[in-house]
Amino acid sequence: MLIGILGAGQLGRMLALAGLPIGLRFRFLDPAEDAVAAHVGELIVGDFDDPAALARFARGLSVCTFEFENVPAAALRAVAAHCPVWPPVEALETGQDRLAEKTLFQRLGLSVHPFAPASTRDEFAAALRTVGLPAVSKTRRMGYDGKGQAVIRTPADADAAWEALGAVPLLVEALVPFDRELSVIGVRAQSGEHRAYPLVENVHERGILRLSRAPADVTPALQAAATAHSKAVMDALGYVGVLTIEFFDAAGTLLANEMAPRVHNSGHWTIEAARTSQFENHLRALADLPLGDTTPRGPSAMVNLIGACPPLADLLRIPGAHPHLYGKGPREGRKVGHVTITDDSATLARSTQAVLALATEHHTPLHPDANP
Amino acid sequence: MLIGILGAGQLGRMLALAGLPIGLRFRFLDPAEDAVAAHVGELIVGDFDDPAALARFARGLSVCTFEFENVPAAALRAVAAHCPVWPPVEALETGQDRLAEKTLFQRLGLSVHPFAPASTRDEFAAALRTVGLPAVSKTRRMGYDGKGQAVIRTPADADAAWEALGAVPLLVEALVPFDRELSVIGVRAQSGEHRAYPLVENVHERGILRLSRAPADVTPALQAAATAHSKAVMDALGYVGVLTIEFFDAAGTLLANEMAPRVHNSGHWTIEAARTSQFENHLRALADLPLGDTTPRGPSAMVNLIGACPPLADLLRIPGAHPHLYGKGPREGRKVGHVTITDDSATLARSTQAVLALATEHHTPLHPDANP
Repeated sequence: MLIGILGAGQLGRMLALAGLPIGLRFRFLDPAEDAVAAHVGELIVGDFDDPAALARFARGLSVCTFEFENVPAAALRAVAAHCPVWPPVEALETGQDRLAEKTLFQRLGLSVHPFAPASTRDEFAAALRTVGLPAVSKTRRMGYDGKGQAVIRTPADADAAWEALGAVPLLVEALVPFDRELSVIGVRAQSGEHRAYPLVENVHERGILRLSRAPADVTPALQAAATAHSKAVMDALGYVGVLTIEFFDAAGTLLANEMAPRVHNSGHWTIEAARTSQFENHLRALADLPLGDTTPRGPSAMVNLIGACPPLADLLRIPGAHPHLYGKGPREGRKVGHVTITDDSATLARSTQAVLALATEHHTPLHPDANP
Repeated sequence: MLIGILGAGQLGRMLALAGLPIGLRFRFLDPAEDAVAAHVGELIVGDFDDPAALARFARGLSVCTFEFENVPAAALRAVAAHCPVWPPVEALETGQDRLAEKTLFQRLGLSVHPFAPASTRDEFAAALRTVGLPAVSKTRRMGYDGKGQAVIRTPADADAAWEALGAVPLLVEALVPFDRELSVIGVRAQSGEHRAYPLVENVHERGILRLSRAPADVTPALQAAATAHSKAVMDALGYVGVLTIEFFDAAGTLLANEMAPRVHNSGHWTIEAARTSQFENHLRALADLPLGDTTPRGPSAMVNLIGACPPLADLLRIPGAHPHLYGKGPREGRKVGHVTITDDSATLARSTQAVLALATEHHTPLHPDANP
């Protein structure tokens, strides 16, 4: 079975590494000649809006998916003329627009921050009055890793925020205090069967995920709520594959922040530390194969390597550390790899600190103008 | 780091699948255009004795290894002019000759069956007198998966055995009763550091490995003996990488049967069920990286898929089953995949039976004339 993936970065690469052992093969479309998934499948170099490249890519595919959510919906529609495309285009479009996303969450009964859209300076002022201060304004589209956001703490910040972002439609949200960030990864089969991984606790640094701990230390009630939210959103979208929802935990209430219609950085721990990885489960759903067990094999942590990789030997020497190097060159603010740490709890804590120390030493933080 | 592998079958493929996540890349040399490791690296199609193909293969490699033990030693020597080759050529040559192998075992104090070489009909008769009946005669070279063997139970069988095999040099061994077959997989670093995985119990069917259980149920003394044997052999050979030794357990004595200077079918369970897989540890040794933890993550079993694969969906539905399909077409007696079963012990037993039942249903046994 030949699986097509739009985008050939590390997520595409890890999808292929999960699918090759079960006999799947892969073709990628990506504008970058040096895209790192090329090592594990056929890479077609071309733009996502190039009809000839899309036609070459689509020929002979059994099913198609995408590895990042800023791929144009039109590209998916073009491929859908040749083979099934999962997750559905509607899920991609919803995930690409913060307003559509929040509106869907609200409609399905998920708690969200107060929010309001703004396309003009007047709407922006009205939105700030609606949600109150402090607030955060975000571009409705194309934001990721903390890009395209501005915080408004006092009315005096409003002009600067509008100047920085107002050229495109915005979503304004109340900046609500929260205790921690959690995410839930769900997988839904073509039959409608739904499974969720346990909640993960995530720590961001300058908008980029730095550390995940799985499973998060949560009450059964909070886990049940997260699983129900995941199922509600995926059912509503007629979803097939893996979808991630990020929440803020505000005094025990899950506030739905955003969703990613794909495998997700906060699920990388599942490669070593769950009975079936998020990557394999995404592929099983696409290929109409039985879903795999989402039970953790033990506690784990995941540390992102940002900017540059520490020496591999130093990482491998840490007990329970499983480095994943994506084959990308170093660049400020770029995710170049991650390390999952498994093992009994005592080793886990020590080893996670050791990985964080190494990662920090070789870390180049995200520069505001950097392109990760 | 670019790793060269002579041979591009499933072992090469699984080596690459273990090395890609830690940033290694792979090039293969294989005579078969449809060799299955081509999905995970660059395949150079050529014979192992083709100097031009070997030169193209060797260009720019950081280190070279091999995935099956019948590659000509001359090919390794040709590549060794360009880059380090591990395991050492001497280990390959020893593993290719049953007489050299048994002589090494004996010299290092490992227990072996009574054995004697035979290159002529007279030597054959003398060898049978030396080792006694029943005996088994084996071709000294190029035997695998039970091929090239003949059993002599009575003097009347001797002529037929000689007729069948005597065109090439033979080794004659006493056929000693044994309780079970065990194997130990060791890994040795360039520093000389040695680690062993726990003993595995293997069940063969018509000379092909059918089922492995890991860890085997053995006394600490038996495990210590196996680890010491592994270290003695690897030290004597100045070995770097993974080496497997197969034993017969005869009433608590380990009789060394043969060795394979490479990753081994009886170590496939380590992918899911050890902290570091045999494939990753082989690569770590070659690349002079710290060795990984060989501790099991729990009990496991491994079932080979021979001849043809059962439907993937049926395999994936079995709790704890991790199918590996090599991408080979069906053929009588051919290893086309394996399934590792992990999980708690109760599930393990049930699931192993379920996998065996499916595998048997789709099994084509080795025909005496088949080429696996």
